[in-house]
Amino acid sequence: MKRFALNSATTKRWPLPQLVAGCADAGVSGVGLWREDLAAHGVAEAAALVRDAGLTVTSLCRGGFFNVPGWQDENRRAIDEAAALGAPVLVLVSGGLPDGSRDLDAARAHVGRSIEALVPYAQEAGVRLAVEPLHPMFCADRCVVASLGQALDLVEPYPPETVGVVVDTYHLWWDDQVWAQIARAGRENRIACFQVADWVTPLPAGVLLGRGLPGSGSVELRRFREAVDAAGYTGPVEVEVFAEEVWSRPGRAVLDEAIAGYLTHVA
Amino acid sequence: MKRFALNSATTKRWPLPQLVAGCADAGVSGVGLWREDLAAHGVAEAAALVRDAGLTVTSLCRGGFFNVPGWQDENRRAIDEAAALGAPVLVLVSGGLPDGSRDLDAARAHVGRSIEALVPYAQEAGVRLAVEPLHPMFCADRCVVASLGQALDLVEPYPPETVGVVVDTYHLWWDDQVWAQIARAGRENRIACFQVADWVTPLPAGVLLGRGLPGSGSVELRRFREAVDAAGYTGPVEVEVFAEEVWSRPGRAVLDEAIAGYLTHVA
Repeated sequence: MKRFALNSATTKRWPLPQLVAGCADAGVSGVGLWREDLAAHGVAEAAALVRDAGLTVTSLCRGGFFNVPGWQDENRRAIDEAAALGAPVLVLVSGGLPDGSRDLDAARAHVGRSIEALVPYAQEAGVRLAVEPLHPMFCADRCVVASLGQALDLVEPYPPETVGVVVDTYHLWWDDQVWAQIARAGRENRIACFQVADWVTPLPAGVLLGRGLPGSGSVELRRFREAVDAAGYTGPVEVEVFAEEVWSRPGRAVLDEAIAGYLTHVA
Repeated sequence: MKRFALNSATTKRWPLPQLVAGCADAGVSGVGLWREDLAAHGVAEAAALVRDAGLTVTSLCRGGFFNVPGWQDENRRAIDEAAALGAPVLVLVSGGLPDGSRDLDAARAHVGRSIEALVPYAQEAGVRLAVEPLHPMFCADRCVVASLGQALDLVEPYPPETVGVVVDTYHLWWDDQVWAQIARAGRENRIACFQVADWVTPLPAGVLLGRGLPGSGSVELRRFREAVDAAGYTGPVEVEVFAEEVWSRPGRAVLDEAIAGYLTHVA
């Protein structure tokens, strides 16, 4: 249980005070938060809520979306928020193709330049940027970074203590290269965040909200946890599930199920 | 127009006699067929229909689904049908994980053994097997072969004149390795079939029927055609689109639109 962390996206409709109290009560010491969670309370109050319950913030989701005008200021604000929360990691989802564009190479090159532009600011703030490859089904409209190998190539020019990657089982499980790339990520000291969700079919329309709690789907979750461990990762294991079916249930029941799934299928 | 071919999945509700007549009228000389198209007429009559209109069958879809009991007999029947039609290529979609299994490595190894088992039969029939990597979003329930590199690794032990791969823009466009793998496929003489569809968002529930006609989506289609050409491929370019919105329209209107999209975005 020491490494288990609840990402607040899993219990999207559980307000932060209840989520924090529920985690403390369940013996969970780490939470991954979203910027939306902070908006309702202000960053300082959210940070105090978490701290006063004896919890730590494992990551903040998310920066990125470099295809949206104003991305630079928006990402600096996200870095500031991560620093204020004491979150060691800010997750970056790159964004998809610009409207009307088919130029994937250009979009990917722009992601590299955007990360480069944020590095000094992140360094100063003491926040590590974590580039997240999403499943290739999100390539057009959400994230042009579509595999772990590609993410590692992309971050290669930047110092690993400032720029890492996210290993998320949901996004990477299909890739026959993923085990070699996790080992590479370890060698290159890039694993900044490890997130767990299961793959469930059929996918819903829009494909965003079809993830499953650990054990409900097709992914060899324990193999992933063992692989990141073997690569030298010793950080938290965040359960992060987006699913309407999960969101519709009470937060505490979902948390208990996430813990049970974690213990049976991941730990 | 010489290389344009209509895959009958694009005009799913156009009966074969009308499809054949419509293609001939539009100056289309190649059609990719599905085994379902044959079932309504019998293979011999379907073959005669196509031949008498002066058309050729560019490929038959599909064999594979090696996770379904009876796959060996079923695939032999598919090979026989391809031979009877004079189709040079039988497309193989591997199938997903067996029910209740999470063992992707085992499923992939089973695909290799299944192809191996079919090689002598295909050789005798003079039909080339074409292993199709599908988009990773189909990995669990439809096709454990999820990238062109993986497909090429899988077919490596078998003679290229009997076992090749399908390059389908819809399934491969997101992959930053795809250009290198297309070049490799050319060097290794593996490109057996080239299919074109566009990537359109948002995806519908179940994600099977969300493809777009050429030019309607995010894919650099011409770059793909140029890449397979540069790799030495000189065969047909099949437009293969699965989409409820396309199927709901008259076959001839869809064919005209497919041709227009091909000429503007692919040729």
